[in-house]
Amino acid sequence: MTPQLRPYTDHAEALVAGRETPRAVLEACLEAMAMWEPQVGAFTATDVEGARRAADAATARWKEGRPLSAIDGMTVGIKDIIDTDDLPTQMGSALYEGYRPRFSAASAWALRDAGAVILGKTVTTEFASTEPRGTRNPWDLSRTPGGSSSGSGAAVAAGMLSGAMGTQVVGSIIRPAGYTGVYGFKPSVGGINRGGSLDMLSHSCSGTMAASLSDAWCMARAITERVGGDPGHPGLGGPLLPPEARRPATLALLRTEGWPDLHPEAGAALEGALDSLRRDGIRILTQKECPELAALEGAVADARELALGINAWEWLWPLGAFAERDAAALSPSARERLARARAMTRAEYAALLERRAAARAAYAKLAGLCEALVSVTAAGAAPVGLGSTGNPAFVAPGSVLGVPVVSLPVLRCEGLPLGLQLLGFRDEDAALFAHAAWIGGRL
Amino acid sequence: MTPQLRPYTDHAEALVAGRETPRAVLEACLEAMAMWEPQVGAFTATDVEGARRAADAATARWKEGRPLSAIDGMTVGIKDIIDTDDLPTQMGSALYEGYRPRFSAASAWALRDAGAVILGKTVTTEFASTEPRGTRNPWDLSRTPGGSSSGSGAAVAAGMLSGAMGTQVVGSIIRPAGYTGVYGFKPSVGGINRGGSLDMLSHSCSGTMAASLSDAWCMARAITERVGGDPGHPGLGGPLLPPEARRPATLALLRTEGWPDLHPEAGAALEGALDSLRRDGIRILTQKECPELAALEGAVADARELALGINAWEWLWPLGAFAERDAAALSPSARERLARARAMTRAEYAALLERRAAARAAYAKLAGLCEALVSVTAAGAAPVGLGSTGNPAFVAPGSVLGVPVVSLPVLRCEGLPLGLQLLGFRDEDAALFAHAAWIGGRL
Repeated sequence: MTPQLRPYTDHAEALVAGRETPRAVLEACLEAMAMWEPQVGAFTATDVEGARRAADAATARWKEGRPLSAIDGMTVGIKDIIDTDDLPTQMGSALYEGYRPRFSAASAWALRDAGAVILGKTVTTEFASTEPRGTRNPWDLSRTPGGSSSGSGAAVAAGMLSGAMGTQVVGSIIRPAGYTGVYGFKPSVGGINRGGSLDMLSHSCSGTMAASLSDAWCMARAITERVGGDPGHPGLGGPLLPPEARRPATLALLRTEGWPDLHPEAGAALEGALDSLRRDGIRILTQKECPELAALEGAVADARELALGINAWEWLWPLGAFAERDAAALSPSARERLARARAMTRAEYAALLERRAAARAAYAKLAGLCEALVSVTAAGAAPVGLGSTGNPAFVAPGSVLGVPVVSLPVLRCEGLPLGLQLLGFRDEDAALFAHAAWIGGRL
Repeated sequence: MTPQLRPYTDHAEALVAGRETPRAVLEACLEAMAMWEPQVGAFTATDVEGARRAADAATARWKEGRPLSAIDGMTVGIKDIIDTDDLPTQMGSALYEGYRPRFSAASAWALRDAGAVILGKTVTTEFASTEPRGTRNPWDLSRTPGGSSSGSGAAVAAGMLSGAMGTQVVGSIIRPAGYTGVYGFKPSVGGINRGGSLDMLSHSCSGTMAASLSDAWCMARAITERVGGDPGHPGLGGPLLPPEARRPATLALLRTEGWPDLHPEAGAALEGALDSLRRDGIRILTQKECPELAALEGAVADARELALGINAWEWLWPLGAFAERDAAALSPSARERLARARAMTRAEYAALLERRAAARAAYAKLAGLCEALVSVTAAGAAPVGLGSTGNPAFVAPGSVLGVPVVSLPVLRCEGLPLGLQLLGFRDEDAALFAHAAWIGGRL
């Protein structure tokens, strides 16, 4: 049984013509769910009957020629760190067992407002941090799908959903997207309104994981059309439909922390992709000929540690409140994070913020030298075992830098998916998608 | 019956010596509550027995010489827009009737962690916006206490609390502080962790309203010592005890929007205060001799409208979700705000953010020219009637500019309180307090 993606917005013509309907797509998702979910464990809660009603309503709107948006009728899931008013929101923690928020988070509310069919909540690691919650990778059930957006990646990979919400503060969208072979989009910091989700950290983002680049874009853009970005940010802009593919002239190869551990097959797959792009006349900058890139690589050489330090402090609350209520309900890793935060000082945190700002300044100097930066999403295929969601070393830089990142499922390692990671420039998410569309089309 | 403030941290020596105890202070607060609360209506919920237990525990700690902080045992209230795990959090809206969050907000949790005695939740206007919820001004029951932190101001003014949490996005701390004759502190944007409160707007702040400048500082600083500032901000720093009084050399008189409406008595009171400061050798800059000040006054001439435009967009969510659930449960003013937001575009919002950034840049040019800016908190005494919380024209600039603001209850108009407003420089809140302490001591 091979996982099969289920793109949605790519079939707009069929939807318009009535050859495809939201209800039929939903039923296909449900069939995939019947096959896969018992083994994969991607969902924490579902509402099949509610989804059928929503799909029927969307079907009627397409039939009448009045869809609410490009994603009207698209079957989606919501990462369980994001509030929903009609399904429990349990944060991957016993502390939120049975929790029912009064109102949906901005992203969930906007998706429903755009006509999306919310089939269920998808598994998150504990508080979207490190502790896994048992979801398996559809490509190899002995392996992790990555995290923290574990269920979103697995459900989209297995065709149970066309798209799902994810959140990322270290590597929580792009890493699982790579491991599960789906399209991942972490927008510029502030790009999607995070209201009503627990990912309140300073470089955390809500983003999308989807069966196609078009689905990833249309979902994100439909949200920001309705609820904007985080307060204080203009939010993701650009066309409502996917930006047209555009060939980049120059890309830069970003060698992140973890590069020495790159699996030979992963390295060969990346080199093959870069060679193919070179044959298309695209220049691939490396640090040898580009001092600005070398400086950036230096500035993000410990991005993972930088991210974890910043995150620890920013978790002082609510982790302190959680621990006071019931420390035993926290995982050992959450308790360690709290201990680390308690050992930090305001001054140490402020110094980490300054280092982050310096890394962002180093990144900004690449603008004008290349259209995007390219890397892989991990050192190789998803690791065997469910005790860890894998190493985020390759994806932490994009988080810390606050830039838009797209993962394209175009590489393979050990016969399993691996993502090509593309990093754009802050608040130029649409340009990144245009280049990603071109690159994805060639590879 | 004249309202009487009940300072707490100012009596540290008496607490150490055992001449004063948290339990005795609480009982005095309860006596004041018995007298005032039936007429004033400052609270939405109280926990008298819980407060007594907390006060007894604090009393024991002081006796043992081991208080948890300077505010250990201080009787405080929490504005009802801020989550508390042991008292309902109802946001001034029927949509949150009976709402019981699982965990306390960062500020409420930190206050309890510092030993503060949380007596109750204080009335907020609907969602900390404009719609009043009936609280009266203890100085004149026919008048508003201002808003949106209506209950916090009224309760502190009447000696029912030594301090209370407030939040401000236009004028919600400094305006009621002025109208009720208490000390108000709106920190630099990001200064106090807002996690777990609904004031998520981009220039909103959590802050304190208290019976003394020391109480206002010690409360705020005890919070940030435990939970820091908003994610991404270093948070309020400086000493845990109030910064020592420091005489400023130069102040700048900020003539805000609304200046032509200044009540003659308010104008005379301000002039009297400025004359007194001049006699102390302090130079008072005005726009005539300071082009940077004139430029700033131009940049904030419509600060109120700028704030309301930014706020409207940032309320798209959750107001949209609230309206979908039960539009009739929203006040007409909330529905108007939503309609205004829906009529806006992302580009219009982005333009407002740019204007705000320009105003902040104009303000930053005053650094080095003066130590603080000075104004009044309103055109005059609190207006008669409970249908409005008064005009925020005088206080909106401080909100939009993101700078720290202190209100000193040292002016009078119509025999009623009016605040002297002092504005400092971003993230230099401790310096502002040092100057405020000196100025407050002289006036």
